[in-house]
Order: sequence, then C-alpha cells, then structure tokens
Amino acid sequence: MKILLTNDDGIHAPGLFALHEALKSHHDLHIVAPEAEMSAVGHAITLVDPIRVKTVHKNGDFFGYAVSGTPADCVKIAVQEILEPPPDIILSGINWGNNVGVNILYSGTVSAATEGVFLGIPSAAISIGIQKKPDFSFAARFSRQVIRILMESGLKDGTALNVNIPPVSPEMISGVCLARQGTSRFEERFERRRDPRGNVYYWLSGETFIENGNPDNDSAALKQNKITITPIHYDLTAEGELSRLKAARVLDKLGDIS
Amino acid sequence: MKILLTNDDGIHAPGLFALHEALKSHHDLHIVAPEAEMSAVGHAITLVDPIRVKTVHKNGDFFGYAVSGTPADCVKIAVQEILEPPPDIILSGINWGNNVGVNILYSGTVSAATEGVFLGIPSAAISIGIQKKPDFSFAARFSRQVIRILMESGLKDGTALNVNIPPVSPEMISGVCLARQGTSRFEERFERRRDPRGNVYYWLSGETFIENGNPDNDSAALKQNKITITPIHYDLTAEGELSRLKAARVLDKLGDIS
Repeated sequence: MKILLTNDDGIHAPGLFALHEALKSHHDLHIVAPEAEMSAVGHAITLVDPIRVKTVHKNGDFFGYAVSGTPADCVKIAVQEILEPPPDIILSGINWGNNVGVNILYSGTVSAATEGVFLGIPSAAISIGIQKKPDFSFAARFSRQVIRILMESGLKDGTALNVNIPPVSPEMISGVCLARQGTSRFEERFERRRDPRGNVYYWLSGETFIENGNPDNDSAALKQNKITITPIHYDLTAEGELSRLKAARVLDKLGDIS
Repeated sequence: MKILLTNDDGIHAPGLFALHEALKSHHDLHIVAPEAEMSAVGHAITLVDPIRVKTVHKNGDFFGYAVSGTPADCVKIAVQEILEPPPDIILSGINWGNNVGVNILYSGTVSAATEGVFLGIPSAAISIGIQKKPDFSFAARFSRQVIRILMESGLKDGTALNVNIPPVSPEMISGVCLARQGTSRFEERFERRRDPRGNVYYWLSGETFIENGNPDNDSAALKQNKITITPIHYDLTAEGELSRLKAARVLDKLGDIS
C-alpha cells in the first residue's frame, strides 16, 4: 500500500518516526510533514507566503520531505506535487496528546486527515494521550489495524477516522470502541505579563479540561482506557437547527432587507 | 446590546469598519481583531508565542484592540481578558469573499464565530462575495437582521450562523434562505518557482471552484443571488457512518491488538 505519513508535531517528532518504523516493512511509505512544530494550527493553509520543500535524511538515508507550512499544506502539496500517483491512504500522527471533544477543531493532526478526505483519499488521525514517558510503540502497531479499517469498512466519501489511544501501558487497554466526538474542552486563562520595556503581553495558559461525561463520547471512553475511533466529516451544518429554523419560519419575521 | 466585532482580514479592513458604522448608533460595540490579515488560518490558536494587544485609534478616537494572533485568539482574549462582562453577541466580518462549502473549514472568519459559541455566546460570521468594487454598506445593514435572528430564534447552544451575501447590488438580491453547507470547494494547483539562489519554492495558486449543484446548498443559493444563512456546529461526528460501522461490527474483525 502506498501511504502518506504526516503530522503536526513536525518531521523530526518521535511519533512520526514510530509510525514509520512500524509500517515500513509492509508498505510503500512517503513522509511529507511540517518542518517545524505546528500544533493548534487547526485547518490553516498558507496563502500569503511561499512554501518551501526540503529533503530530510535520517542515519544517512532519505526519510521524507519537510514543508514550511501547515499539516493541511503538507497533504495538499504531497498529493498535488510530490507523489504521483496519489497515495492510497493518509495517516497523520502519532500525535503527542489526545485529540478529543471540541479541541479537535484546533488540531493540525486531525486537519491533515480532513484535508486527505477533501482530496478523496481514505485518511486517519492517530493520537496518544500524554504520559510521563513517551512510548509510541503500541500506538504505532495499532496503526496497522487502522489501515485495515480504512481499507475494509467502506467509509463513505468525505469521512475520516479520528483515532485516540489512552495514555496507559498496552496491558491496561480495555478495548476498542466507536465513539462520538464529545463536547469536552479546555477552559483557558491568559497570563498577563510585562516585557522589559514595560509593554503588556499575554500567554494562553492554565488549561482546565472540562469533561463531558456522556459514556459514548471520545473522552469518556478514553478514561475507561479504551481506544476510540470516531468517524468525522467536514459538514458543519447543524441539521437539527436547520430543520427547526425552517419550521419556525424565522426568516418570515425579518423586516425590509433593502 | 453589547457586541464584540472581530474578523480575519485585520482590524484595518473596510468590512469591519462598515459593520461598526452600521451598528454604532444602536449598540455598545467592542472591536478586538487581528493586527494583520489572517485569512485561511482556520481555527488556529496561538500556543507557542506570546500574544500582544494594542489599542487602535481612528480619526483620533479609540476604535478597538489589535491582537497579534488569530481570529480565535481574538475571541478568547476579548471574552477572558478585555471585556467584562462578556458580550451578548459576537459578529465576525464582514469578510471580503464568501465562505461556503468545504472552504469554511479554512476560514478564520467562521472560526471566530465557532469560538464564540464554544464560549456560550451567540455568534455569526458574515461574508460578502468578491465584486469589482467593494461595497459593504448593504451587508453591514443586513447585520442588523442577523442580530435579530441571533437574539430571537433561540439557537441551541453550540450553534453559530454562517451568513453569506451574494456579490451583487442590493436591488439584485432575490431573497434570504436557510441553506446547508455544501461540498463546493476550490481545487488548487501549486506553482513551482526557483528563487535567485536556485532553490525551489511553491505558491498555492490557480484555484478552480468546483461547484456542487444541490439547490439547498449555500453556493447554489448564492448563485441565485440569495443571502444564505447556515446554522453550523462544531460536532464533526459523521453520525450516519458511526451507526453503519457499529451495525457492521467492524471492530469485531480486528485481530489481536496487543
């Protein structure tokens, strides 16, 4: 299988390397990943700056292409310029930190998978929860199962998979489940400081995780040490509210619009 | 009404100024917007850099706060640090260029509204199609109707409005409709160049708009010169595929995961 690997932690991140090591003997792998860390870039793309592409070697061997852009840029340029024919599958990760709840909107890892399905290619994002000592080996092995699901489950066009591995050792994992994106989110604070010239600046900080306890949600299942797989799409239409607003004829109440 | 105005074209953009002019006599307006243009930043937030906030004056009067960050950063810092109590409503725009179809995922304008509803505040993004000569006056007046819908329609928590005005003169507008986010998208090309030192770089360019003709979609309605209003949410769960994968018991077919 021809597989594009990318991420948002940058081409030198250990999670990407672990994915590469776990898959290289069975697949034709191609790495196109951001040159620098691109966490929390969401689905940004680079319009106003030129994009540079450099080759990266590891231990003397060609490893992949480093792109001066976002994860979505990497997927676009890999599919349109670097790989011909396009890959059969795109895997994004392994991200250091789970991507669940509302926070998936901020995630560069997830946006790479979404960009992949925009382009018609089966895609998944894979993330592991933060532990004291990073160990990507289990998650990297599990990526083989993710490939299997991508190939065999007949996912509808436009649907990507968002996969999360709980931050526990493999023997603690209690199963794999299909989960809904929950509404858990971080509540941030800003820390106000003054620079040496007396000017005020802020750091986004002090995140508190606001849990939503619904048991079929991604974050709740993760807390039970389950691997979660969430099929996601890019249609943001709030269907229920669309129907309700139509039935309530809210537009009839508008005044003169001229 | 206490209203936060923001955008992704930057605090000096004419669309933001037009919104301010149209609403200032009836509302308590607060502007917190990016210092620089932030188009196509998606739902990016600034984690690794400090955020600076500067006051901006226009014609000698205080106009608003310019933030060295993304539209989502502006909403966060406005609500958490600058405005106390928080605003009743958030309006993002008026963006120069419609935000429809798949492209809303890339939109900083839309992400500001989504961030607003994350924080529990009724929010809308307003965009106008690109015309030869920018004229924001009609769109700015229409924002009063958008405020009315936000206040009176009882939108469910977590639902924002994505409003698009067609790029025609007001007398050509054929109505207002509730529309679904379509699947229209830009198909991009990369333009390969060499810098004076012989290094290769790329520009994202040559966008072709791929239309999806479904008549209840945003882009199709806009082409009929209708103003479109799309209720959007941040739940990316592909519900249909989630149910189908559960029914098909795809996880039962996984091998040993240890």
